[in-house]
Amino acid sequence: MSIRYLTARAAQQIDEELMSSAGAFSLDQLMELAGLACAQTLAKVYGKEKYGRVLVCCGPGNQGGDGLVAARHLGMFGYQPTIYMPKPGSKDIYQRLQKQCDNMKISTIPSSASVDALREALSSSDVVLDAIFGFSFKGPVRAPFDSALPLISSSGLPIVSVDIPSGWDVEKGNAEGVGLNPDVLVSLTAPKEGVRSFTGKHFLGGRFVPKALEEKFELNLPDYPGFDQIVELPRADTSQKL
Amino acid sequence: MSIRYLTARAAQQIDEELMSSAGAFSLDQLMELAGLACAQTLAKVYGKEKYGRVLVCCGPGNQGGDGLVAARHLGMFGYQPTIYMPKPGSKDIYQRLQKQCDNMKISTIPSSASVDALREALSSSDVVLDAIFGFSFKGPVRAPFDSALPLISSSGLPIVSVDIPSGWDVEKGNAEGVGLNPDVLVSLTAPKEGVRSFTGKHFLGGRFVPKALEEKFELNLPDYPGFDQIVELPRADTSQKL
Repeated sequence: MSIRYLTARAAQQIDEELMSSAGAFSLDQLMELAGLACAQTLAKVYGKEKYGRVLVCCGPGNQGGDGLVAARHLGMFGYQPTIYMPKPGSKDIYQRLQKQCDNMKISTIPSSASVDALREALSSSDVVLDAIFGFSFKGPVRAPFDSALPLISSSGLPIVSVDIPSGWDVEKGNAEGVGLNPDVLVSLTAPKEGVRSFTGKHFLGGRFVPKALEEKFELNLPDYPGFDQIVELPRADTSQKL
Repeated sequence: MSIRYLTARAAQQIDEELMSSAGAFSLDQLMELAGLACAQTLAKVYGKEKYGRVLVCCGPGNQGGDGLVAARHLGMFGYQPTIYMPKPGSKDIYQRLQKQCDNMKISTIPSSASVDALREALSSSDVVLDAIFGFSFKGPVRAPFDSALPLISSSGLPIVSVDIPSGWDVEKGNAEGVGLNPDVLVSLTAPKEGVRSFTGKHFLGGRFVPKALEEKFELNLPDYPGFDQIVELPRADTSQKL
């Protein structure tokens, strides 16, 4: 039985169930574990000696929150992250996560800055963590991300995307060609339909799905090794178009 | 510069500062990372093949919450934890953490059960995770823990204690001799004065202390390896009494 690829709707249902009174998880908990998995994935592939300067690009939603958590853990791991979050979400949790990063002396590009600031930050970064859009993304890409995505792409930097590469349709993938082309992807809880054909290094994070929920949604998750928060998935078989 | 051992008061100050509006951490976040560090410590020393049945003993306070989080992660790691929490705390978070364990099919000894249930659980366990009392413990040990501690001790099972072995004074250690004698200790954020003479395997967890806070309290924390949530501390030098 191979791992299930989720529709946008199924991904949302799982998320809701985890945080329902039955699932009992708080957003703080799930975001902490998801962000930690993202930071571990980046650290697993890109060592801090050569790739110390990480530009963490955060969207306005929960995905951006995962990015802020990842930035903090990357700081703990000895990386020098910089945060680009031009549209910080209004929920209290984003402000707390941002403050935690400030306390770590992680610098954040002012949200009032023009895209030139992003261009400059890219030129002094070694790798990008793409936490812009997640499984609730619905195109088209709006400002300022419509300018940000091409800049990130043309930087030539290696990209680690969280859950779904930004700009990709959650189910149809990069059909419109406006999305990022990451080298590494970390799917959270289970991969999404849109990344079936992703051929880069693919990790799974979100080691918090109870067995009963896994069975209910027929996720067929692989075993995580030891006490890691991530597991590498086999590369997509590109000889067979799915 | 060697690591600082904290008084009960300093430990409390650090905790308060982390969760103040300046520190910006939520209890959910800190407990998640602390509990994960506890689970990783146990998994590092006691492999699940030989020590799969873990009795997680939880006190009524935050320490017990760390225990519930650890139990869930141990379940995720493939262990078969059982929870002993005879005095569940009344805060909402304990109920949520308990529900998360229930969803993992982790069994909990009913809080109404007599100490015989603990004796029975010990006889079918391979290792104990002691999350009964933490840095806010003030003796004497009250019921039902006054009966539980001797039972745990006399079981002969290996014990992993969280932060301070249960029954020890946070600053004076096991001076009164009523405490557990763990094989492994996982200190959280920084070790406490009372464990200076602890000679077993000693780990540090709580990789969330920002540098500024570390410097303010002169903690002199060691570097954590890679992206682990724990680091092993050198064994206490027992040739020199401190």
